[in-house]
Amino acid sequence: MNPKPTGAIGRYAFDGLDRVLHEKARLGILSSLLAHNRGLSFNELRDLCTLTDGNLSRHLGTLQEAGLVIIGKTLRGKRSLTLVELTADGKERFLGYLGLLEGIVSGALANTEAPPLAGLEPA
Amino acid sequence: MNPKPTGAIGRYAFDGLDRVLHEKARLGILSSLLAHNRGLSFNELRDLCTLTDGNLSRHLGTLQEAGLVIIGKTLRGKRSLTLVELTADGKERFLGYLGLLEGIVSGALANTEAPPLAGLEPA
Repeated sequence: MNPKPTGAIGRYAFDGLDRVLHEKARLGILSSLLAHNRGLSFNELRDLCTLTDGNLSRHLGTLQEAGLVIIGKTLRGKRSLTLVELTADGKERFLGYLGLLEGIVSGALANTEAPPLAGLEPA
Repeated sequence: MNPKPTGAIGRYAFDGLDRVLHEKARLGILSSLLAHNRGLSFNELRDLCTLTDGNLSRHLGTLQEAGLVIIGKTLRGKRSLTLVELTADGKERFLGYLGLLEGIVSGALANTEAPPLAGLEPA
């Protein structure tokens, strides 16, 4: 009797890699916010990530809908400004994503010759 | 005289993060191929990455157009099959991408409080 398939099916599906967090511009926004735990203004984020106003707005909308960021008005000195912060849930999910990505990268770099494809159709 | 901006502008733009390689399904396909340097059949890739035939075809087309993979017909035993391999250039670029991603992840995980935003407009 042959051994059971080794679980090769779906090994590279990366199911946990949430596209909301993985998209390049949003990865930049989330990294910026993780590095600045008192939040960033719209303009600071725009400049750190080199995005247009329109693109930044669109991506912030996506992140807000997913519960990852909170966007509000606050005062800095006497000026009103739009402040963006990671939510507690957003921080937790982004850290989880980074851990997953770290595993994918180190796995890919280490594993340049994987075990045989037991359990897969040859063609 | 104030010091020059510290290069905060664009710090999180991640310009080198090529969207052709970064997209989740293609990241899976490229990781699979990196781990199997004799190439993989269409069906093996489909199963490893849990993609539909249509999705896999579409992503392979994108990777082929970018010069990252070569897709050809070969024989395995007496059966003709579609074999996909990383090109030499594709391997080099994917390894470069993985190195960049590794830096982004370790930077994000280490850097939960970044230096002040010299040179950026406050709002």
